[in-house]
Amino acid sequence: MKVVVTGGAGFLGQLLIRALCERGSLSRSNGTSAKITRVLAIDQAQSGKLFVDERVEYAMGDIAGQGFLAQALSRDTDSVFHLAAVVSGGAEADFDLGLRVNVDATRALLDACREQHGRPRLMFSSSVAVFGSPLPEVVTDATTPTPKSSYGIQKLIGELLVADYSRKGYIDGRSVRLPTVVVRPGKPNAAASSFASGIIREPLAGEDSACPVDPGTALWITSPRAAVAAFIHAHETPESDWELLRSINLPGLTTSVRDMIAALRTVGGDAAAARVKMVPDARIRAIVDTWPARFTTERADRLGFKAEPNMVDIVRAYAAEYAR
Amino acid sequence: MKVVVTGGAGFLGQLLIRALCERGSLSRSNGTSAKITRVLAIDQAQSGKLFVDERVEYAMGDIAGQGFLAQALSRDTDSVFHLAAVVSGGAEADFDLGLRVNVDATRALLDACREQHGRPRLMFSSSVAVFGSPLPEVVTDATTPTPKSSYGIQKLIGELLVADYSRKGYIDGRSVRLPTVVVRPGKPNAAASSFASGIIREPLAGEDSACPVDPGTALWITSPRAAVAAFIHAHETPESDWELLRSINLPGLTTSVRDMIAALRTVGGDAAAARVKMVPDARIRAIVDTWPARFTTERADRLGFKAEPNMVDIVRAYAAEYAR
Repeated sequence: MKVVVTGGAGFLGQLLIRALCERGSLSRSNGTSAKITRVLAIDQAQSGKLFVDERVEYAMGDIAGQGFLAQALSRDTDSVFHLAAVVSGGAEADFDLGLRVNVDATRALLDACREQHGRPRLMFSSSVAVFGSPLPEVVTDATTPTPKSSYGIQKLIGELLVADYSRKGYIDGRSVRLPTVVVRPGKPNAAASSFASGIIREPLAGEDSACPVDPGTALWITSPRAAVAAFIHAHETPESDWELLRSINLPGLTTSVRDMIAALRTVGGDAAAARVKMVPDARIRAIVDTWPARFTTERADRLGFKAEPNMVDIVRAYAAEYAR
Repeated sequence: MKVVVTGGAGFLGQLLIRALCERGSLSRSNGTSAKITRVLAIDQAQSGKLFVDERVEYAMGDIAGQGFLAQALSRDTDSVFHLAAVVSGGAEADFDLGLRVNVDATRALLDACREQHGRPRLMFSSSVAVFGSPLPEVVTDATTPTPKSSYGIQKLIGELLVADYSRKGYIDGRSVRLPTVVVRPGKPNAAASSFASGIIREPLAGEDSACPVDPGTALWITSPRAAVAAFIHAHETPESDWELLRSINLPGLTTSVRDMIAALRTVGGDAAAARVKMVPDARIRAIVDTWPARFTTERADRLGFKAEPNMVDIVRAYAAEYAR
């Protein structure tokens, strides 16, 4: 089978592609297992060294551009993992770019899926940013999404399109709402949540890191490996498990900046913890404060999605993998 | 001030334009009243005789087409009533046309609004079709929209765009979720709700009318005059009355096909009532059955929106106006 990963050169895309290659197969809609013969990674630009495997190809181009996705998917794509996005801070700073990538490219991808020989299974990377204040103390599966950022609005529009293209029978779509992914390796990005990785990553690399929000700020997070496992699990569950709206709140871990620094101290010592500097940033805080931090995720739990149990494990896994 | 009405040659658009001309003025964002000097009605085609007034102009064209809306709005538009849409049955039958008009044209309109000298006030005609089963017995202001039709999905996407363009300060938007409008004059249309007007309108004109749903089918309805009053009232309320998501469930009347036929009998006599023929249609019923029929509308009530008190009054008003 042919699998397409948008945002495939990005950090999560690379982890996902590696996991797909290690796994070697995915379920088909009839429940049988099929060998992954080809993984096509789509991205706008190559950044750093890319994962290499004889099954993996890279196609670089503008996913919102005319015809690029249709050509890349050809007519033989079986499964799509749609990770490409303009992140929260980026979509807020450049409104039109956010709409172009998060909405227009998603629609171009869904239309390209309609042209495939089979009905592709599509996993859409959504976000808890679809929830914005005012919110209940604990967000449940029944909480109405009320985005308070362009990123959240655009992700919710993507979910609605995925739901309707699925209802019409064009695709078999599943939208997973990711918690903030911590710890991301590499460099800070334009996401308002960038600091949540930075305050672990930079101190472990011996560098100072600015924390723009209060120590008490609560966050709903997941780890890179749990996020990748969730994408694959979303693919593997039978279609009958998905309700008509096709969106699910993934399980995660409620933590706080204070807890994260404590975990950093456990793994990296006092010197590492001391490298986190409190530098309040009203713009970042205004966005982060609208994000929900406490969830119950009964539906995802029932479908077998798993969360990380604690922050120290997350920091340890990052240190073992990247901070050598 | 210059007012633009999309779908301005349609039935509701014509009623709204007449009401605006009779009224003569609208509020500005600073609360002062301003004279309406120009009403630009935009539509795809002229159908029948149009309302004439020295302040009213008509511009016919493709609202999803490149540049048409930007040119029509020029840079001097103060208020926009966005009524143009592909209706429910139409959007379900032609998926791409629905997206093109209900989503793309709405976005083109919002982008045209950004180019105006002031920040236009925009009223978006949404629908209770944003709600689909499973639903609570009574829909409240807190009920999560879960559309089960392409029309509902597309209207909800429009609402999200209106909300985000408003949050960004590009427009002052207000989305009103209309109940099914009964009694529409003229001919049946592609809306799945077309029968709800047909079973009153055709018998009063001495013609038989097919009813595709069960007599017990409950419907959440409003009248044309109440819908027009709601658009104008939505314009006149101060921006501070609108929450960040900018959408409101309008008040309406819960009725049933049986009640509607009884009202028809009261106004038009037994002969009229006998002209309604039960002709079940599974396709129509499948759409209508996903629509909610019972609401509480506390927020709209508090903001001063009004519903029609009973079905007989609605039929009487129609008969007095159109069935002469």
